Amino acid sequence: MPSSSLGQMFVVTNFGESHGPAVGCVIDGCPPGMALAEADIQRDLDRRKPGTSRHVTQRRESDAVHILSGVYEGRTTGTPIALVIYNEDQRSRDYGAIAHQYRPAHADWGYMAKFGLRDPRGGGRASARLTAPTVAAGAVARKWLFETLGIEIRACLTELGGRPVRFEDWSCVNDNPFFAPNASQIEELESCVDAARKSGDSIGARLRLEVLNVPAGFGNPVYDRLDADLAHALMGINAVKGVEIGDGFAASALTGTTNADRMLPGGFASNHAGGILGGISSSAPIVAQVAIKPTPSVRLPLESLDEEGRPVEVVTLGRHDPCVGLRAAPVLEAVAALVIIDAALKQRGQCGNLGRAYPR
Amino acid sequence: MPSSSLGQMFVVTNFGESHGPAVGCVIDGCPPGMALAEADIQRDLDRRKPGTSRHVTQRRESDAVHILSGVYEGRTTGTPIALVIYNEDQRSRDYGAIAHQYRPAHADWGYMAKFGLRDPRGGGRASARLTAPTVAAGAVARKWLFETLGIEIRACLTELGGRPVRFEDWSCVNDNPFFAPNASQIEELESCVDAARKSGDSIGARLRLEVLNVPAGFGNPVYDRLDADLAHALMGINAVKGVEIGDGFAASALTGTTNADRMLPGGFASNHAGGILGGISSSAPIVAQVAIKPTPSVRLPLESLDEEGRPVEVVTLGRHDPCVGLRAAPVLEAVAALVIIDAALKQRGQCGNLGRAYPR
Amino acid sequence: MPSSSLGQMFVVTNFGESHGPAVGCVIDGCPPGMALAEADIQRDLDRRKPGTSRHVTQRRESDAVHILSGVYEGRTTGTPIALVIYNEDQRSRDYGAIAHQYRPAHADWGYMAKFGLRDPRGGGRASARLTAPTVAAGAVARKWLFETLGIEIRACLTELGGRPVRFEDWSCVNDNPFFAPNASQIEELESCVDAARKSGDSIGARLRLEVLNVPAGFGNPVYDRLDADLAHALMGINAVKGVEIGDGFAASALTGTTNADRMLPGGFASNHAGGILGGISSSAPIVAQVAIKPTPSVRLPLESLDEEGRPVEVVTLGRHDPCVGLRAAPVLEAVAALVIIDAALKQRGQCGNLGRAYPR
Amino acid sequence: MPSSSLGQMFVVTNFGESHGPAVGCVIDGCPPGMALAEADIQRDLDRRKPGTSRHVTQRRESDAVHILSGVYEGRTTGTPIALVIYNEDQRSRDYGAIAHQYRPAHADWGYMAKFGLRDPRGGGRASARLTAPTVAAGAVARKWLFETLGIEIRACLTELGGRPVRFEDWSCVNDNPFFAPNASQIEELESCVDAARKSGDSIGARLRLEVLNVPAGFGNPVYDRLDADLAHALMGINAVKGVEIGDGFAASALTGTTNADRMLPGGFASNHAGGILGGISSSAPIVAQVAIKPTPSVRLPLESLDEEGRPVEVVTLGRHDPCVGLRAAPVLEAVAALVIIDAALKQRGQCGNLGRAYPR
Repeated sequence: MPSSSLGQMFVVTNFGESHGPAVGCVIDGCPPGMALAEADIQRDLDRRKPGTSRHVTQRRESDAVHILSGVYEGRTTGTPIALVIYNEDQRSRDYGAIAHQYRPAHADWGYMAKFGLRDPRGGGRASARLTAPTVAAGAVARKWLFETLGIEIRACLTELGGRPVRFEDWSCVNDNPFFAPNASQIEELESCVDAARKSGDSIGARLRLEVLNVPAGFGNPVYDRLDADLAHALMGINAVKGVEIGDGFAASALTGTTNADRMLPGGFASNHAGGILGGISSSAPIVAQVAIKPTPSVRLPLESLDEEGRPVEVVTLGRHDPCVGLRAAPVLEAVAALVIIDAALKQRGQCGNLGRAYPR
Repeated sequence: MPSSSLGQMFVVTNFGESHGPAVGCVIDGCPPGMALAEADIQRDLDRRKPGTSRHVTQRRESDAVHILSGVYEGRTTGTPIALVIYNEDQRSRDYGAIAHQYRPAHADWGYMAKFGLRDPRGGGRASARLTAPTVAAGAVARKWLFETLGIEIRACLTELGGRPVRFEDWSCVNDNPFFAPNASQIEELESCVDAARKSGDSIGARLRLEVLNVPAGFGNPVYDRLDADLAHALMGINAVKGVEIGDGFAASALTGTTNADRMLPGGFASNHAGGILGGISSSAPIVAQVAIKPTPSVRLPLESLDEEGRPVEVVTLGRHDPCVGLRAAPVLEAVAALVIIDAALKQRGQCGNLGRAYPR
Repeated sequence: MPSSSLGQMFVVTNFGESHGPAVGCVIDGCPPGMALAEADIQRDLDRRKPGTSRHVTQRRESDAVHILSGVYEGRTTGTPIALVIYNEDQRSRDYGAIAHQYRPAHADWGYMAKFGLRDPRGGGRASARLTAPTVAAGAVARKWLFETLGIEIRACLTELGGRPVRFEDWSCVNDNPFFAPNASQIEELESCVDAARKSGDSIGARLRLEVLNVPAGFGNPVYDRLDADLAHALMGINAVKGVEIGDGFAASALTGTTNADRMLPGGFASNHAGGILGGISSSAPIVAQVAIKPTPSVRLPLESLDEEGRPVEVVTLGRHDPCVGLRAAPVLEAVAALVIIDAALKQRGQCGNLGRAYPR
Repeated sequence: MPSSSLGQMFVVTNFGESHGPAVGCVIDGCPPGMALAEADIQRDLDRRKPGTSRHVTQRRESDAVHILSGVYEGRTTGTPIALVIYNEDQRSRDYGAIAHQYRPAHADWGYMAKFGLRDPRGGGRASARLTAPTVAAGAVARKWLFETLGIEIRACLTELGGRPVRFEDWSCVNDNPFFAPNASQIEELESCVDAARKSGDSIGARLRLEVLNVPAGFGNPVYDRLDADLAHALMGINAVKGVEIGDGFAASALTGTTNADRMLPGGFASNHAGGILGGISSSAPIVAQVAIKPTPSVRLPLESLDEEGRPVEVVTLGRHDPCVGLRAAPVLEAVAALVIIDAALKQRGQCGNLGRAYPR
């Protein structure tokens, strides 16, 4: 019952706190024989890491990953892969003031209620920093998925602070600090984030996730459906409050005939379903969207309670992202990779194949 | 790695097909000593069962539950509780025509791709009938949650076929065939479903779920967060395409200060978070919303392929709900009960308590 | 965390009590497409069932298995297979006297300490009757193992009531009520059991298990080693108190050179290891031995306590095997099948193959 | 399905190779609020570490443990505890000769068959060095068990190279390099090990494990019985080939009346059962014994095959224990602690208590 583990065949166990010595994970069940070097993992970590633009937290971390096990002479051995990222820039003094206060919209009170104590430094284990090990593990998974099945995974911003981000082109997504799928709206997005930062407040975002070339047959009929597992992993990302597969909430206003993705020779006529039917992949692109709430850490004062139950005004200093959604794209991609590889290995285990192509 | 199981401490393993001899489940890990009779379970099953109004499938099932184990002299023994519901009204002949065709928006093709064969009778395992065992298990869970912690769980319709259902009052929800939270809109909803049924098409719905009196402290920081587990269970219900916790997608347009639920002496000032912060319950009501796609089974012809890959026109006869969302409220309540009891028992196991009340 | 489940990919969840309505299990994760009928399962159940000779309990059970799900038109569908065996001959009145007493060497006190209540009828869930579902599930597993990999599984008696049972020939094992591997000692064994039964006492036994044609590569390096999983499953059989793999306890007196199974072209020179090295199958026959304690139910009076802690003399009436080891061979075979199929499917999932033959 | 994890509530995930950068583990599910420092763990690691006498491997490792997460201001936070032990004395050049040969009685061939490649340095993941993380995790578990329930765990040598080691006194066990329970036989044991080392051969051993003050009620009726879980963990230790609970194999020669542990006011009259009945702890001391095969690494030449299937003579140089059993006592204690804490937390989760005392 490892609560900090994700997956059943490709199992990632996450550890660490924002201001402890390190964050990291152990991957158990990785297929053996795959070429793997730290650079393969670093690429995705660098896309997520803090301090890369003025729009994200200014914490300085190289986020260099170290492989402690499971790789021999450049290949995975099939045994556990331990990945460690040492924390470098812990400025814990910033947090003294709020060590005994519950920040509204934060995990502080929940942790105290659950565990009876908590590590207040930088959010402890509730920090978005804990997505770094997820991204590292996801990099291993996506490498296997691409090499074995040609699967590609991508995510982009679709809304920022309530304003829609126009989809124009996947190609520019990694060229701007917002993972925005257009080049023309960047100035507007910069102003939006700058305004939030200056006001001391924070904003939310929405992102779209796509997984291409997933064969049909991954997932399960009941409970551990592919959409259910994906929803679990996506909702498990810090600050995510909503998850949609395919048309998502818009589907409830369609009729059965408008929602049905007709099967034509050569492919589906549409993809309302987002690539998953009855909990099982259909070979159409898997499409999901998430909503991310505004960062709870704001410099403006908020009413709350301290650990004694006394009213206090909380002001959160420290370094924070004015919008955690800005660094979320690589995290979405990572959890998608983890969910898909797990489904792939389970399919191979039970059924002896890696799914099937759309019927010719 | 049981894919058909839900939960880690209170584990429900689901079995059965729509037109096989029976559907059912085994509950492993139920706390011992709780009074339990079949009538306690039947109540929720009857709320979900087919044939109760003209608006749902006309299949005639008594849905009588049989307890095969785990109860002695009216009390749970702590050992596995096997629950069986025998199928009574399998009219499988209706399905002959589509036995070798892939119905669009259905699981047919996915099952074939995954398993290489499928049981086409009534949707086989992909049928919404498989929510019956979930509801049965949920009834056991909610009884324990209510008796031990005073937890109450309720769900209602919030949208039908694209039209909003006004929230007026929880008290009338179980008095109409739509689980609608108002008495004044029933005629309108009846017309809406009648129109869908007559046209041979189907419609979607949205529902709201609330869980009251959950103590603070249930859930986990990373991966198996309470919201993640809830999203998994809700997205695992047939036809669900979107899940929101608290404000859900609306949260992405808020600012940090408007989204923050201030903690006042006596309680939270608001509940944007939907009762879960950092993956852990906060003691505020847990609130979620789901979107349900229109029933894929429609009488209107749809283009598709047969098992040989040849184009066909599919017409789905058989008996179907024009809107699966109409019977979904008890299912939402059941999966919520299962997720919460699992979190409760895990909390008690690891931390030695059943959570904590809001700080006085 | 289902405690009543065995396996991770081929998961068997066991339910039922000796004198409840039924015993049974749900198999989740069975490979699809395998021909399966009730008769395939009944064969092994009949080898285990009570009342087949004067040497075992005289309870009359047909032990007829019913497949409730997971099989369509004679083939496994890949979805959960529910197997139910209805209890027919519950003579619970026999147990009235001991309903509130703790029988020595029995599970009575442990159940009461754990659960705070217990089902005293026929041992409730602690009865050896609960091995019937295990045998049923094992029959499904061994069918797949034989058809897919040619794996054969067999067990025989090696000691009864302290006297060695000579190994002569596997062929006669299923022709005598003791699963003894010789035809010449049967009278002696009959006398031995008759004497125990007449005296009102009971005796123990040892059995040997062999699994042939397991490819090399099944199992794991650490914790879930193949020998560890086998030991878990074997020690989990009622009344088993010791488990050996290969030479077992005798290995501790060997030297490294005498214990080493040299690898020659064509095969191992010996099999001290019992087919498992470093937790992984070697392709040599897997060999294990278990010790089974004497049946705790005896007609002779024993000092004990009642539920109030008062001293009592316990006399166990009811119908019991004078030696539970006599019906254990099919159970050993079943758990071996369950452990091996689980390892096979995990191997296929992670590594994409079903193991490897001895190097030519 | 993490194969490198042990436990379901207190979950230990093991990683590392003998000659990689580090070995370690992640503990998920530790109860929060327990005082914990590296010194608490180091104590047990030092009892297991190499190089402490001439009788064990001369590899020089400080085996210093580093806590990377899960502890804040000296107390466990309830979140994952990552423990790392960096390897310091990897003399991998010693292994060059056998990098492409299968050492008899070793895991070499099994790993190759399973994974298609292997890390030959020092046995890679099959090395007994991988018991270090187990011991580290066990130290955390036993601290909680002692502080919460007064549970004590101890192990000692009972046989070395075929010769019985007399039990005299637990007090001297930690004062000699053999974990022998007597002071008078030490010279004899030294000669025995010296002889083995000089001959280039190796010897086996047996050990006894005792766990005191375990309350009644830990464990489960079917499959995950306490004895089954203990057998799994013990058989999962490198080189263990046999496991007995209580009287073990001797039990098969007893009668029901001689084997029955009568319950008297104040306690059991005997402990043939070894503290576990029906898979559940009885409150009597838990007693187990294991057999450990001779170290497979010997300097004497053995016939085998190389990776091309060609006959070779294998001579294993490098540094090895002439008897791995000599350092096994702390490992037995550790796995016992891990099994018992897991059962304790599961009991608390399901039943709301930590077991029960013997009935007064």
